[in-house]
Amino acid sequence: MRLVARPVGVPADECFELAEVDLPDPADGQLLVHNRYISVDPYMRGRMTDAKSYVPPFELGKAMEGGAIGEVVASASPDFAAGDLVIHNLGWRDLALVPAGGARKIEPTPGVSPSAHLGVLGMPGLTAYVGLLDIAEMKPGDTVFISGAAGAVGSVAGQIAKARGAARVVGSAGTPTKVAWLRENGFDAAFDYHDGPVRKLLKEAAPDGIDVYFDNVGGDHLEAAISALKPFGRAALCGAISSYNATEPPAGPNNLSLAVGKRLTLRGFIVTDHGRRMKDYLPEMAGWLREGTVRWQETVVDGLENATGAFRGLLAGENLGKMVVRLNG
Amino acid sequence: MRLVARPVGVPADECFELAEVDLPDPADGQLLVHNRYISVDPYMRGRMTDAKSYVPPFELGKAMEGGAIGEVVASASPDFAAGDLVIHNLGWRDLALVPAGGARKIEPTPGVSPSAHLGVLGMPGLTAYVGLLDIAEMKPGDTVFISGAAGAVGSVAGQIAKARGAARVVGSAGTPTKVAWLRENGFDAAFDYHDGPVRKLLKEAAPDGIDVYFDNVGGDHLEAAISALKPFGRAALCGAISSYNATEPPAGPNNLSLAVGKRLTLRGFIVTDHGRRMKDYLPEMAGWLREGTVRWQETVVDGLENATGAFRGLLAGENLGKMVVRLNG
Repeated sequence: MRLVARPVGVPADECFELAEVDLPDPADGQLLVHNRYISVDPYMRGRMTDAKSYVPPFELGKAMEGGAIGEVVASASPDFAAGDLVIHNLGWRDLALVPAGGARKIEPTPGVSPSAHLGVLGMPGLTAYVGLLDIAEMKPGDTVFISGAAGAVGSVAGQIAKARGAARVVGSAGTPTKVAWLRENGFDAAFDYHDGPVRKLLKEAAPDGIDVYFDNVGGDHLEAAISALKPFGRAALCGAISSYNATEPPAGPNNLSLAVGKRLTLRGFIVTDHGRRMKDYLPEMAGWLREGTVRWQETVVDGLENATGAFRGLLAGENLGKMVVRLNG
Repeated sequence: MRLVARPVGVPADECFELAEVDLPDPADGQLLVHNRYISVDPYMRGRMTDAKSYVPPFELGKAMEGGAIGEVVASASPDFAAGDLVIHNLGWRDLALVPAGGARKIEPTPGVSPSAHLGVLGMPGLTAYVGLLDIAEMKPGDTVFISGAAGAVGSVAGQIAKARGAARVVGSAGTPTKVAWLRENGFDAAFDYHDGPVRKLLKEAAPDGIDVYFDNVGGDHLEAAISALKPFGRAALCGAISSYNATEPPAGPNNLSLAVGKRLTLRGFIVTDHGRRMKDYLPEMAGWLREGTVRWQETVVDGLENATGAFRGLLAGENLGKMVVRLNG
């Protein structure tokens, strides 16, 4: 799936092109991988735009990239064999020629879909863990607010917060179904942000204020959180999905000066700086999944031809948990 | 000087009343202090408003409070004697009955006005030190931007930055005189924010971006700094004088989402949390003053009857360096 025009606003069909090309046999050090699951993630919207960012933009006319899980079909590397399940970054395509250095073997876990390595056992899960514990420095007893709480990152962040001893975890989401899911999955309170001003809804859900805010949304959510944060509160800024399709700069929080008197810390982060924490995260999350402390949710769309629609749906909030695209064999 | 009405916008004369009262002799543990210098500081604007803040509001009908330097006239405490020079928090009046526990003796330093203890050797100086080194974690080699750079805090912060090895220090101020003062006192570049959009002026003064931002102003200065901050940049949020007289919430920075990709940290602070750093600060600053590395500036207004005018002038940026009010003997 190629990007052929840079989207303005919601990425239209005309921005993408499904192309068929013949792939050569893998050269020395390459693997031919048949992708089973490919990832669509909010950060990809930034790569579709030709702007300076922490990741370079996708090149026009070339296949896009992104997380993928696939099976090695042919290997020209001594470290991999046909049949191996691998995770790599050449998604958005059925078959990929992957440099062996860019692939990592995955051991199949009974009862766990391989797609979990694109979510709870992968980048989004680590994002939740690092953002909550390292960036926002959540402590046991804290009250925690998570926006976009039914998404791939937020749903895990809320459950990690509870597992690590948060006194109260509040989540916001955009549909009644998501709100119900949050209430059934460890969140102490949850609200649909369509039901009123976020500031008011948050005040009702956390009347004594919050210690930690995990921001996936930006905009009025961040503004409400700044008002609700208690002295020495911390906000981890993970993303601002509310503005990803925006064509005008969004209004900033008009109450940011509260950060002075309340001694707030707002800190942005990106997960790729924190890969070394995977070794702490994976065993801890494996335990939580085993005990049922954390429950994992995903929304699966079938077929590469539907991947751009899945991506649009992700930005529109149509997913519950991690959005993945399953490719047929 | 009493607050008799809560100001809306610029504090009008009608909000204040100069009253004369008879003071009793000091009771046990009290000092009668003749104030020589009283401080007007931006944070006092917040105390004039009846809003939840980190310091309680001034009470209507009572004399206001604030930093002051005075001479003990009569002491009913074994720890103080008539003639001692003390710093305490019962400013905004000629004579004060000060609890001994609320006063600290000051040793006269040759060549240094006692008023320096309200500025470079007092709270504003420590604010600059803590904000720059502890909150923004300035490192040698950093490029530093300071707004309100000709004020009591900013003028010291810029010179501390240079003394501690900043590669480049940029300051903004509101008059050509202030900008000239900055250029003559250690700042590598300085601009008058009336000369164009702050974002453009900052880009010219620091074309490669900044590592640290010391925010005394808020508003468009903060927005410009967020754009200019390099990856892993830090902003110390010290105050937002641009909005202190505002009657509407100010627009927030419309580019705050840049904090994610650039992994920025924005952190508010108030100096009273950091009193323990005074023991590190004072000897270091004493050395810098002795060597001439740091030069100290103040704007002196005479007479208690002119103190509210001095305060208004402070909020309007009429001061160069620390604004103090000198009281006649």
